[in-house]
Formats: sequence, C-alpha cells, structure tokens
Amino acid sequence: MNYVKEILSSEDFISKKILVAGWVKTFRANRFISLNDGSTINNLQCVIDFEKYNDEFLKKISTGSAIEIKGKVVESQGSKQSVEVLVDEIIILGESDPDDYPIQPKKHSLEFLRSVSHLRTRTTTFSSVMRIRSTLSYAIHTFFQKNGFYYVNTPIITASDAEGAGEQFKVTTLNYKKLKVDNHSDDFFGKETKLTVSGQLEAESYAMSMGKVYTFGPTFRAENSNTSRHLSEFWMVEPEVAFLDLKGNMDLAEKFLKYTIDYILEKNKEDLEFLEKRLIEEDKHKPKDKRNEFSLIEKLNFIVKNNFEKITYDQAFQILKNCKPNKKKKFKYLITEWGNDLQSEHERYLVEKHFKCPVIIYNYPAKIKSFYMKLNSDNKTVRAMDILFPGIGEIVGGSQREENYDILLKRMQEFKIEKEELWWYLDLRKFGSAVHSGFGLGFERLVMFVTGMSNIRDVIPFPRTPQNAEF
Amino acid sequence: MNYVKEILSSEDFISKKILVAGWVKTFRANRFISLNDGSTINNLQCVIDFEKYNDEFLKKISTGSAIEIKGKVVESQGSKQSVEVLVDEIIILGESDPDDYPIQPKKHSLEFLRSVSHLRTRTTTFSSVMRIRSTLSYAIHTFFQKNGFYYVNTPIITASDAEGAGEQFKVTTLNYKKLKVDNHSDDFFGKETKLTVSGQLEAESYAMSMGKVYTFGPTFRAENSNTSRHLSEFWMVEPEVAFLDLKGNMDLAEKFLKYTIDYILEKNKEDLEFLEKRLIEEDKHKPKDKRNEFSLIEKLNFIVKNNFEKITYDQAFQILKNCKPNKKKKFKYLITEWGNDLQSEHERYLVEKHFKCPVIIYNYPAKIKSFYMKLNSDNKTVRAMDILFPGIGEIVGGSQREENYDILLKRMQEFKIEKEELWWYLDLRKFGSAVHSGFGLGFERLVMFVTGMSNIRDVIPFPRTPQNAEF
Repeated sequence: MNYVKEILSSEDFISKKILVAGWVKTFRANRFISLNDGSTINNLQCVIDFEKYNDEFLKKISTGSAIEIKGKVVESQGSKQSVEVLVDEIIILGESDPDDYPIQPKKHSLEFLRSVSHLRTRTTTFSSVMRIRSTLSYAIHTFFQKNGFYYVNTPIITASDAEGAGEQFKVTTLNYKKLKVDNHSDDFFGKETKLTVSGQLEAESYAMSMGKVYTFGPTFRAENSNTSRHLSEFWMVEPEVAFLDLKGNMDLAEKFLKYTIDYILEKNKEDLEFLEKRLIEEDKHKPKDKRNEFSLIEKLNFIVKNNFEKITYDQAFQILKNCKPNKKKKFKYLITEWGNDLQSEHERYLVEKHFKCPVIIYNYPAKIKSFYMKLNSDNKTVRAMDILFPGIGEIVGGSQREENYDILLKRMQEFKIEKEELWWYLDLRKFGSAVHSGFGLGFERLVMFVTGMSNIRDVIPFPRTPQNAEF
Repeated sequence: MNYVKEILSSEDFISKKILVAGWVKTFRANRFISLNDGSTINNLQCVIDFEKYNDEFLKKISTGSAIEIKGKVVESQGSKQSVEVLVDEIIILGESDPDDYPIQPKKHSLEFLRSVSHLRTRTTTFSSVMRIRSTLSYAIHTFFQKNGFYYVNTPIITASDAEGAGEQFKVTTLNYKKLKVDNHSDDFFGKETKLTVSGQLEAESYAMSMGKVYTFGPTFRAENSNTSRHLSEFWMVEPEVAFLDLKGNMDLAEKFLKYTIDYILEKNKEDLEFLEKRLIEEDKHKPKDKRNEFSLIEKLNFIVKNNFEKITYDQAFQILKNCKPNKKKKFKYLITEWGNDLQSEHERYLVEKHFKCPVIIYNYPAKIKSFYMKLNSDNKTVRAMDILFPGIGEIVGGSQREENYDILLKRMQEFKIEKEELWWYLDLRKFGSAVHSGFGLGFERLVMFVTGMSNIRDVIPFPRTPQNAEF
C-alpha cells in the first residue's frame, strides 16, 4: 500500500505502479477522481477511462466513498498538480449515498459540522486543524523531553477539592436511586471523589525529587459556561521546575511557546496556508474594523520573532488607568482601584493596542490569586504571571510557589483549606523545600491561536460542554 | 545553574566553577555529600571542609534536605566516581528533620512507600521507574509520529455505555441528597454520563478520514479488583488504522513493541542496570524455582531480537488440550471444550513453557469477544488478536473491525446495544466504509514489563484502586 503523501512528494514514483486507498473528495466529468487518504492535505488526482465502466459502477464513485486504486503515476497534464495516476483497476470498498452523506463538496457551517463530529475531519478545514493539533502535542513533548523534563501522569480522579481552579464533576459508583444522603462510605473510593481541575499540586511533588517535570492530560470544569472559549473537558500542559524562580519561569514559558509555534510553522506549512486562506475569506464578510490586521502565518511569525513584553501588575494598572478608553469611559469595567482583576477588555487593550505584542503581567495582587503562589516581601503581591496573546487573551498562567511552610499554612487558612486535606502538599515544604515554579497552558487555547479557529469546540475532536456529551 | 547530569557526563567541567542544587541522599563523615537533582540516577559527590562549619550547620545537611552548592569540579580521589566537587559555599534551602523524614537511607518496603507516594520518587527505585515511564511515553509518541500517525484526544466523559470493556464510573454534578430518582434531565450534560473505558470507537471515526491515528490517554474501570495487575485509572494507547487487516495489525503491534522497548534499552541504560540489580537481590529471597530465568536486560533484548510466535486460537486450543499439565489435571481450569476463553495459567504455559517467547493468538471464538470485531467467513471466529508477554500475560488486545453495516448491526443486536446509541459508529459503515484495524495497549503493563516491577501500583505516580484515591 502506498500513501498519497509519499506519491506526491517524491519523483521516484513517476512511471511506477502504485496501490493506494482513500476517500473520494470529488469526481468530475466521469474521469477525474480527487482522492485523499488522510496522509496529507493534498489530494491525488486519479484519471479513469470511463468507457471501461458502466454507469451503475461510475455512480458508486461519489464524494465520501472509499476506493482502492491500482495504477501508474505519470506527470500531470493539468497545471494544478505535478503528478497524477492513470487508473488500471478500481475497487469500491464502501459506497457513500449522495442523498444521505452529510459532507457534500460545498461549504458547510462550523455549527452544522459540530453535529457530525464523527465525520467532520473529512473536510479540509478540520483535517488541517487536527493535523496541527497532533503536531503541536508532539512539539510540546519534544520541547520538554529535549530540555530534560520528565512526563508525569497526575491523577484524573481526585479526592481533593483544594485545587481551587473551578467547579468540579463528581465521580461515583453509587446508585442514585438508593442514595438519599450524601454519604460516601459505600462509594468506590470510600469518600467523595471528583474529576481533577489541575495536576499542579501533584506535579510539584514530582518536581521536588525529579527536578523538572511536566503534565499533559485532561482537566475538567463543571461551570455552566456556554462560550466560544470554554470547554467542560480540555487538555492542559503543566510544567513544574525545582530551583526556578518567577523570572526563570517567564523565560521558560516564552521559550516554550516560541518553540512549539515555530515547530508548526516548519512542519504544517500547507495546513497553515489553507487555514490562512480560509481566514482571509472569512474576513471578507466582516466589517473592515473587525478584520485581522495580520495574516495567520504573519501572526505566528510575529510571536516567534519578537520578545514578549514583561510588566508588573502595577505598571499595567498605571497604563490602563491613564489610557484613553478608560478616561473616555469606553471600558465596561473602569480602572479606578488597585487590586481588582483585569478583565478581557483590559488585557486586549494592552496586547492589541498598547504593546502590539504578547505581554506577560507579573506580581499580581495576592487577594485575586491562588493560595499556593509565593508571597512577595511587600505582603500584598504574589509572584504570579499571566501571558496574554492577541485575539486569545490569557494563554498561560503560572507562578513561583510558596515554599515556606508557615506562610503556606497561613494562606491555606485564609482560603479555608483544611491542613489534613493537603498534608502531603505541606510535607513538600517540610522535607527539603526549595524555590520552585511552574505554569499551566490550556492546550486548546494554543490550538485556537495557531489554527486561527475562533470557537474552542472546533479544535478538540469531540467537545464536551453543558448539555452536550454526544459521541 | 548546572545539572548533575551534565557535570557527570562531560570532562569540560573539570577545573570549572559550578552552581548546583539538589537533595542530599547521604552525608558521610561530615565530609562527603551525595547530591541528586533528579537529572540522572547518579549522585554528585560534593566534598566539604567540615572545619569551616559549626555543628549546628552540619546537622542541617541530612538526608532529604535541599541545598545549593558553589564549588569546583575536580577529578575524584575515590574510585566510585570520576569527578567530584570541592565545595566553596553551601546554602541550606530546606531542612529535612531526620526524626520526621519518612525516606531514610535504608531499604523501605514498596507497600510503605505507596503510603508516601508524594515522596517515593526520592528513592532510586521509584525515580528510575518514573524516568523510564516518561521515556516510554515519548517513545510511543515518537514511533507513531514518525510513522505518519496523528494523535487524537478522544473524550474522557462519555454518554455511551456500549464500549463493553468493563464497569464504568458515573460523572455527575447532581446533588446526591436531593436526587431521589435516576433522572438526569437536570444533570450537567442533560443525561447520564460516565468515564470512558476506551477511546477506540471514537478513534475509528478519525481513522476513517485521517488514515492512521492513535490515542494515548487515561481510561477507567470501576471493577472492585484488588490485584497487583489492576488499576481503576490507567493510561491506554490505542492506534487505529484504515485499510489495514488483521495481519497488518499484528505486524504493527510487534514493530511498535520492539521499537519502544529498544528505545528504553538505548536511553535508560543506567536506570535498567539499577532495576536489574534490584531484581537479582529480590530473587535471592525467593525459592529457586520462582526466580527469573533471564536478567531484566536479557529479557528486554530477547523481545527486541526474536519474532513473536503467531498462532490461531484453534492451534492454541490443540496445544493446550494435549499438553502435560492439562492431561495431568494440573490446570485449575481444564481445557476440554473449544470456545472457552483462555485463563492466565494457559497463557503463561504457552508463553513461558511451550514457545518461550511472546505469542500472538488470533482468530478467537466470536462469543467471547466484542461486538465490533470482524466476523470470519466461518461465522464462529472473529479477527481478534491478543499479544502475550512472559510474566505479564496479555499486554495488547486488538482486532480487525467489522466494516459491514448489516453484520455490525446484527452483532449489536446480539449484544443488546441500541442502534440509536451508536448511530454515529454505524455511520462509519454507511459512508465510505473500509477494512480497518487497531489495538489497545495498557501502558502500565508495558511499564511493569520494562522495569520489572511486579505491582502495577508502583509504576503510576498516584495509583487509584478500590478504597484508595489519596493525594
């Protein structure tokens, strides 16, 4: 069996006999089959002599049908492709009734395609997105493995609800009918368990022995958020590094993001070119001021080639307080008081209008951040950092962790977290504690940024959102 | 900051000043600190001039404490290491009270270490196991990506209970107290949802458009199995390939296993040597007939260098029926009737006594296998295959999938699976169906095999088992 990708990418195949199988994208003039087998974005043109086949047979060659072809590779007569296949033999493996098949060779809305998620990678848009998603995953693993990090699988089912990152799903084997009280002594794990919202705390325990580690696994939020930026189930990347401070953490995140994006620019050029054209088409239907300033590939190159701007929350607060939209009361949430969290409109102003590049904000007010973040000596800010990207907003959130036992315990009390619940996490500050830092990257946010897709449901194979767990 | 690994592996550091941080493994004679930072199995010997420090300070240098050292690398006086560090400056980052610290420099039982899973990678055994686990993950991704496979994240939360691989955990946001009836219309997803037991069915939908795909993610079983081979939460690898038949599937699995094991032999030599010595020590306490025939590394080389034996269920049945242990009634389950599933004792006989190599059994009786497996023309066997490894038993299970719509529907009816539940899975047989195959590998089983660990709870960072969801 040969693959479309190898046939199209090597001249060695010219004049050779090949055997190839795939799905029909289009069939024109009873003569030209455009065949795709998933190995590449490009289709292989297969030319048949229709006089050899009867009408009934030719009707079975339709969009979506699976076929196997034996033939000879020749230089193409047409200008659209360099080579094509002169077909000697064609076998219909599986038909695809044009009256029933949902994916016709025309433009479908992304909403409609979500309703047929099991077939949507038969479109070029979705196969490109998912090829990029796959390469991005591998780029992430490769970056960390090359740099001496170990991959750690932190638990998915957890009894802890101290992670504090959001609402959690419950996991149980109890029979709902019989259970009248909230008693989990008969439950599978003997106590109430939930789906994890973050692997960070467990990753910290591994960093405090193995030095540099990272997680890459599914995390969950049971919030009723029906937006284009939220999923109930999504994948997160969480590196954690011993003996690394906040500055080192920011540098690591910047290096990491540049590496992974550059990797895609190199490996998925054709997919990016297709998605770029798609965005340009999409832009044509938008008012001028809503169109993208940069093309997709320009935008990615811009990230790779420019330094991220690093500013403190203080500095961000000053810029925002004195900026035009704030003074002219154009912001929905006006910036008046130090200590409030920044809203998406403020982040976008900083990234898209003020700095026009990715921005890292650090040293946030302690009261709006998590209990485990390292308290600065001013006693009011913590060594947290958020990385903001154009169009996406927050793509990375991280911090130096509080390594002092007494301060951590005090912060836990402030957040009403029981000492008994996180005894093992406290242990890390008792036995060989040290400066350490890490961050979390929402993987789908990165896939959105790299592919230019605007709805997060379109960058994960089978999205889970409120009221939706189909497939 | 320098890492122990780089200091030990390059002569360029000799006579150079370095800065290194890590945890004290041992401190001998108030002079020799054995330091590990997780970057390698090996420790760095750091030599201090104890006359420079007072007793109170020296007491803080104890097993488990975190320290930072500035010093000069010199060729070692001792024979155990090639280089050592003459310490100029030492900073205690985090103490570790010897009276409290659970991980003392002595032999701890694996059971005890499970109770301190947050600290157990501070032992050489567990850091070696987890380093190998990390490399194995990357070997798996690398094998597939090199061979043109795309990584697919299939859903963790699923509304389907047709996967049939085992008991499932329920996922809910309902308040147990208020819920008196089994009504999920108010639940988060509007219906009953569970944790996945396999990503195969969804992976098939991606194979039927993208050609070659694989999953690598967590899967769950709510069975009350308290054995050394079962986890409630474990990681599974599931490739799925279009236009591939059972024979191709067996070849793929063999190539895959050999590649990943060979990768570890090359990259984790020192970890393997340590674990091999550990097993030899363990064997000394066993009766002679229970000891391992091969050393760990010999065993791994044996897998890489020998062909897997491929036999049908029929052939396995004949061998077992006529073998000595069956005739002498030494098996707990005697082999008398064609069609029963093979037990662990039978599999071990075939692998360890009869063939003395990995064995692939294929063409199993249909009635003991899943509904989605391709029915052979004999109407009584399916194109399933199991790969059996010495000491581990089944490590891979796979099959060619039923691609015929009518036969699949009939099989679903036999298994009492509603058509409405798997409408999308049936669609794959309606629109461009084709021969396709795949298999599942229990990742932890592979880690057990490669590390020689005999309890599956010792090869995953934080094991989940009945009554246990600690950390």
